[in-house]
Order: sequence, then structure tokens, then C-alpha cells
Amino acid sequence: MNISQIGEKAKKASLDMSKISSAQKNEILKLSADALIKNADYILEENKKDIKAAEINGISKVMLERLTLTKKRIEDMADGLLQLTKLDDPVGEISDMKTLPNGLRIGKKRVPIGVIGMIYEARPNVTSDAFGLCFKAGNCVILRGGKEAINSNKAIIKTFKDAFSGIINSDIVQLIEDTSRESSVAMMKMKDYIDVLIPRGGAGLIKTVVENSIIPVIETGVGNCHIYVDETAVIGDAVNIIVNAKAQRPSVCNACETLLVHRDIANKYLPLAVKALREENVEVRGDEKVAQIIPDIILATENDWATEYLDYILAVKVVDNINDAISHIQKYSTGHSEAIVTQNYTNAERFIDEIDSAAVYVNASTRFTDGNEFGFGTEIGISTQKLHARGPMGLKAITTTKYIIYGNGQIRK
Amino acid sequence: MNISQIGEKAKKASLDMSKISSAQKNEILKLSADALIKNADYILEENKKDIKAAEINGISKVMLERLTLTKKRIEDMADGLLQLTKLDDPVGEISDMKTLPNGLRIGKKRVPIGVIGMIYEARPNVTSDAFGLCFKAGNCVILRGGKEAINSNKAIIKTFKDAFSGIINSDIVQLIEDTSRESSVAMMKMKDYIDVLIPRGGAGLIKTVVENSIIPVIETGVGNCHIYVDETAVIGDAVNIIVNAKAQRPSVCNACETLLVHRDIANKYLPLAVKALREENVEVRGDEKVAQIIPDIILATENDWATEYLDYILAVKVVDNINDAISHIQKYSTGHSEAIVTQNYTNAERFIDEIDSAAVYVNASTRFTDGNEFGFGTEIGISTQKLHARGPMGLKAITTTKYIIYGNGQIRK
Repeated sequence: MNISQIGEKAKKASLDMSKISSAQKNEILKLSADALIKNADYILEENKKDIKAAEINGISKVMLERLTLTKKRIEDMADGLLQLTKLDDPVGEISDMKTLPNGLRIGKKRVPIGVIGMIYEARPNVTSDAFGLCFKAGNCVILRGGKEAINSNKAIIKTFKDAFSGIINSDIVQLIEDTSRESSVAMMKMKDYIDVLIPRGGAGLIKTVVENSIIPVIETGVGNCHIYVDETAVIGDAVNIIVNAKAQRPSVCNACETLLVHRDIANKYLPLAVKALREENVEVRGDEKVAQIIPDIILATENDWATEYLDYILAVKVVDNINDAISHIQKYSTGHSEAIVTQNYTNAERFIDEIDSAAVYVNASTRFTDGNEFGFGTEIGISTQKLHARGPMGLKAITTTKYIIYGNGQIRK
Repeated sequence: MNISQIGEKAKKASLDMSKISSAQKNEILKLSADALIKNADYILEENKKDIKAAEINGISKVMLERLTLTKKRIEDMADGLLQLTKLDDPVGEISDMKTLPNGLRIGKKRVPIGVIGMIYEARPNVTSDAFGLCFKAGNCVILRGGKEAINSNKAIIKTFKDAFSGIINSDIVQLIEDTSRESSVAMMKMKDYIDVLIPRGGAGLIKTVVENSIIPVIETGVGNCHIYVDETAVIGDAVNIIVNAKAQRPSVCNACETLLVHRDIANKYLPLAVKALREENVEVRGDEKVAQIIPDIILATENDWATEYLDYILAVKVVDNINDAISHIQKYSTGHSEAIVTQNYTNAERFIDEIDSAAVYVNASTRFTDGNEFGFGTEIGISTQKLHARGPMGLKAITTTKYIIYGNGQIRK
């Protein structure tokens, strides 16, 4: 089957989605979760084929770790689908209903986006998660996962389709089995069939999709996050926050990459902070002024300010005041998450106002930028663009609205 | 000055915008409006140069009409800016504020998008309107108007900048004076400086921007709008609505292009509707079944169903039932505005649910899809895409939000 046939089928299936009730959607999600558990052995077997091929081709340890499924991971995937059944259905909500002077009643109805395309790397769990999220929000989804996970992905999708094909049009989820570069480029041009593309993966993948897609894209992920410790910070809090934001899970996009410290607190704060960070195996790279306080520091270069390490490394810079901190962030931030630690009310508000990122914090760790932590129950990614959705994207972020207008013969004058 | 210098300046100016109050913004808009009136003769003189060049190059009558400024049109532009001062400032609104179980207080703050790029055709009034709208919503704007209007645009922008350059960074609005194809392509690649591109103009312009921009685009405009007259329609209403939707202003995107009529009302309705349409000089093209009722009709071809005429032409088709009407619309609609005329409650609700367009009407003309009519006061365009904004876009549609989070030392467990 070629790519545009897949698109056509998805568009067709999406037209039927307006007729499916929330109860039916939850039923399909439960069936899918059950099927994952029942077919765990089959999925693991297919996953082993992918792992074997990956080992032969010599992929990185991190990639191999992400590719590998276990019974526990399959249970987590099933559990993710069950969690979705407990969340409110975002579709159907009607808001801002009002009567215009001419008697027209107008409001906004929340509806699915339609067909969502996901392009991602070799993480089979994304196959299940993305299907569940898109479906719960009433969307059809076309999945294009990394070639290294193709057998795992095929097994997961077959499991789902077998579970619900008698009940619902099974084209609500489709996998592009052709994992050539051409198939992903073709997908990015399918404007007639796909309403939005969501790339998930490294900076390279996202850049490729942004630059080649003619379909609207929601950009996710890249986070060069900053924490600024102001002159009046509570030192204990500032130590806890930087250690948490850097070392609790360095591989994620909301981990902190650069620490900025006001010069008047640096002498007291930095020795404590660096000690605590080193206890967590964090390598600290500082500018000249940091080196004056912590002599055995590695010197940071211009490159460090712009790097999302995703690792146990932190860049540290001493700044003269909040102006310098804000300017530095405005220059290097990717617009994900930034925090100020301060007891100064005016500076807290200035930071909130002048930092243009998806999430701006006062006296808290940047690690909270996460759909679960924000109370959405789950997320499909963290948007770092300004259109449509910004920050963690829950179910609502993969819906849209339409205006509905009830009249009794009104015409325009 | 090259294009990326313009981008850099806009980005820089946008950083200061968070410090400008609503009162200051209104003051700048008033100064700009006054300056338009005071400089009307100068602007008209420069506009004459454009008109002369256009006549030599032989542009179409419609384009010439749009290019031509008059004293009245300049007054309208000024009035548009003054109207904006009366609208609420969308920026600064804080919503959804709540306290999480861990004590974090989290909410959403409405903020400007940043830098907006506008690519449009030879309509000098857009230069003023787009500046006003973007600025009122706290954005900087980079304008790239059609080459035919370059002298007019330069005069308008000079007028604005002279009016407020002592008071505010005048880079809040910039005109790209190089009107070569290269300049517009370069603009579409300036992802570091421009947050969103809004093309305004014909289908060709919009397609070019959508296909070439690596910056997020808000697609506006193309409207192949449908009206379906159901079996139970009130015939008088159905006649008034189609005449209004087609003939009140055929050149706009919310005008109706195809009329679908239930076969059981066609014999009674069509003679009256066609007579009324012909009185408004509308050419009616119908399928075989329409021709059986109105013998002197022009026969419609497949091409007619897909055409946005923007003219005094209407395609008409007799359908067997509401299913056929919905299928036809799903196939040919551009997702702008569609209406059903019916007294059947179930059919009205089905139409509202199953038609996936920005505005879906029951018993009213599609001509109401307009920012002013919807009560936004004004609009920057009508979005036909599903991301970010759908339907008429008022000031709020050219803002975004950021999460603001207040803590007292919270770290993630």
C-alpha cells in the first residue's frame, strides 16, 4: 500500500469519528490494553528480532535501551491506555456561546483535529502511547516510527487492529511500514490527508520535519533550560533546586543546562551548590568568575551556553545583576523552561514578565514542566513553539474548535 | 539593509514590548492615525506613482481598484487604528490559575507572539491594518507587500515611523523594501527572528508560503462555501439566504459557491431561488436534475464543484438526502463556512456535528463569518487551518500564552 492510500483511508476513517461516543472510545482503549497484555509474548518475540538486528548494526547503548521491550514495559503501555479511559473526553465541549444583536446564537465547539501524523524514532512504546492519546481525542493517527523498531511496531499495531477490527474502522490507526527516507518525506507532503504532524525525537529529526513539511507541525522538545539564582535567594532552596533540575533526570528536555548566579551571592552559594552537584556526579563548567571561587572548575566556552547536554554536565556563569541574567537567557534559551530563585518580589515579577518561554518559574525546579505534573494526566509532548499549544500538550492540545451558529433566517446587511 | 538585519531588529524590538502598557499602545495608535490624516496628500502622491506604473504594466482592473488610495480610504485606515484603541488589550490576561497538591501555583499568562511576518499583495490598506492589529496585541511586525504598492507602502510606513520614532523603538514595524521573489523566500526561512507568518492574498500566494516557509504559517482565506437546502427548509428563508450568501459581496471568501438542494423541495424552491439570483445578475450552473427543473440552465461540470468563483456565478446540485449533501461537502469544501437551511432538528444537529469547517451555520447566511460580525471588533484574516486559530482571527489569535509557576522551593520527587 502506498503512502497516499494510507492517507486517504485515514481521512475516511476520521469522518466517522464524530459519531463515536466517549464510552465507545474508552471501550476500544480497554480492548487495546487487554490485547497488549495477552499478546505480550508475541510482541516480545518480534521485539527480539529488532534487538538482534540493532546489535548487528551496532546502534548506541541509549538507543538500544529505548528499543528494548520487557513484560513490565508492555504492562506500562497497557496501563497508559487504561489511564486515558479515566480522563475527561475533551471533544464536544461548547464554550463562549452567546447571542449576537441580530439574534444569531454563536459558540465554539471542541472537535478532533482529524488526522495526526507522528514521526518518531526507535521507541516502540510511542506507538502505543501516540495511538491512545490521538484516539481518545477523536483523531485518526498515521505512525511512522524508526526503522530499527519496525517489527515491534508491526506487532503492536497488529495486536490493536485484531482487538477492535470488528467494532470500529481499523484505519483509525495505521503504521507506515516502509521506513525509507522517501516514505517520511512523502508523508510530510500529504497536506490533503494529514492535518498536523508531530515529530518526536532528537533535534535533528525535528529540524528535518520543520524544514520539509508543508503540513502544519507542532515542534516539541528541545530544552536549553536556565536557572537564575538572584542576590536574595534562600541558599538552601537554590541548592536543592539546581541539584534537582540538573541531576534528578538529566536526559530529559526540562532538565537545567545553565546556572546563572548573581555576583553578590556567588561566594556563599557556589561552593555549596558545586559540592552538592558533584556528589550527584555532575561535571561543572564555569566562566572565569566561577573559576575564581571554585579553582578546580573546567572553563566553559561560548559553545557551552548554547548546548543542551542532556547529561551530567552543567554550565555556570556569574552575572552582575538580573538584567544580565535576562539578557543571557533571551540570547541562549530555546523557550522551554526557565526559573528564578529569589526573595525579591519585583525581580520575581520581572522574570515572569520578560522571559519568553513555555514555562517560567519562581522558586521551583524546571523539572515540573510535564503533562502529569501540570495535572493533564498525560502528554503527547512539550511544545516549544508559540502557535496552537505551548508547553506540555495534553488531550486538549490535539483537538481544535469550530464555530457553530444557530439562526432563524438571518442575512447580512 | 538585508533581510536578516530586519529580522534581528524586530526580535530586539519585541523584547521591549513586554514593558509597554496598554495606554502607551493606544497612544501610539492614535498618533499613527493622526499622522495618516496629516500626511494624506503625501501618501496619495506616492500612491499615484504606483498607479501610473501599474497602468503602464497593465495590471487587472480588480488589482488596480485595490491598489488605489483615496482620501476616504486613508480616513478609513486611520479610523481602523482608532477602533483598535477601543478594544480590550488581550495581553496580560491570566487564566486557569490553580494550586497543585505540592503547593505550586500555576496558571497561563497571555503574551504577544513576538514577531509576525505578513506577506500580502498590492493592497496598501493592509500595511496600516496589519501594523495596527499586530501592535495592539504586543507584536512587532515585518511587512512584505506586493511590489505594485511599494511607493504607497513606503509612504505609509514612513508616516508611522515619523509619528512615533521619538517615543518608541521604531523597529516595531518594518517594511521589506526589496520586493524581489528572493526577499520573500528569504523571509520564509528566518525562523530565528519571525515567530509566525501570515500570508494574505490569493490561493497562489498562500500555497507558495505554505510550501516554502519553515516558519509556522497561519493559512487564511480560501473559501469554497456551501449551502444545503434541506427538505423541510422554510422556502422564503432559503431564498433570502442563498441570494445574500452569493450576491451581497461575491468577491469575498465567505460568499457561497455551491448550493445543494434536497430533491423533494427542488421543484418548489429552485424556480424561486434561480429567479431571485438572476435578478442579482448571478449566473447559475446546475447538474442534470437542476436542468430538468430550470431548462435554460448552464450545465455544471466536475470542475464547478471545486471552484471558488469569487464572482456572480453559482453551482447548483440536487441531492437525494442529507447524507449526499454532507458527503459532497466533505469532498469539496475548503473548510471555511457551510450552512444548512432546515426545520428538521435532527438534521440541523447532524450538519453541525459532521461538517468539519471553521464555521457551521443553521438557517443563516455564510456571509457572517467575519471578525466584526462575530463581535471581535476586527480581524487579521480568517483561518482555514485547524491549528492555533480557526475562523475569524481577532486580536487574541495573534497572541499566545506561557505557563507561569510560583513556588517556594519545590523540587520534583
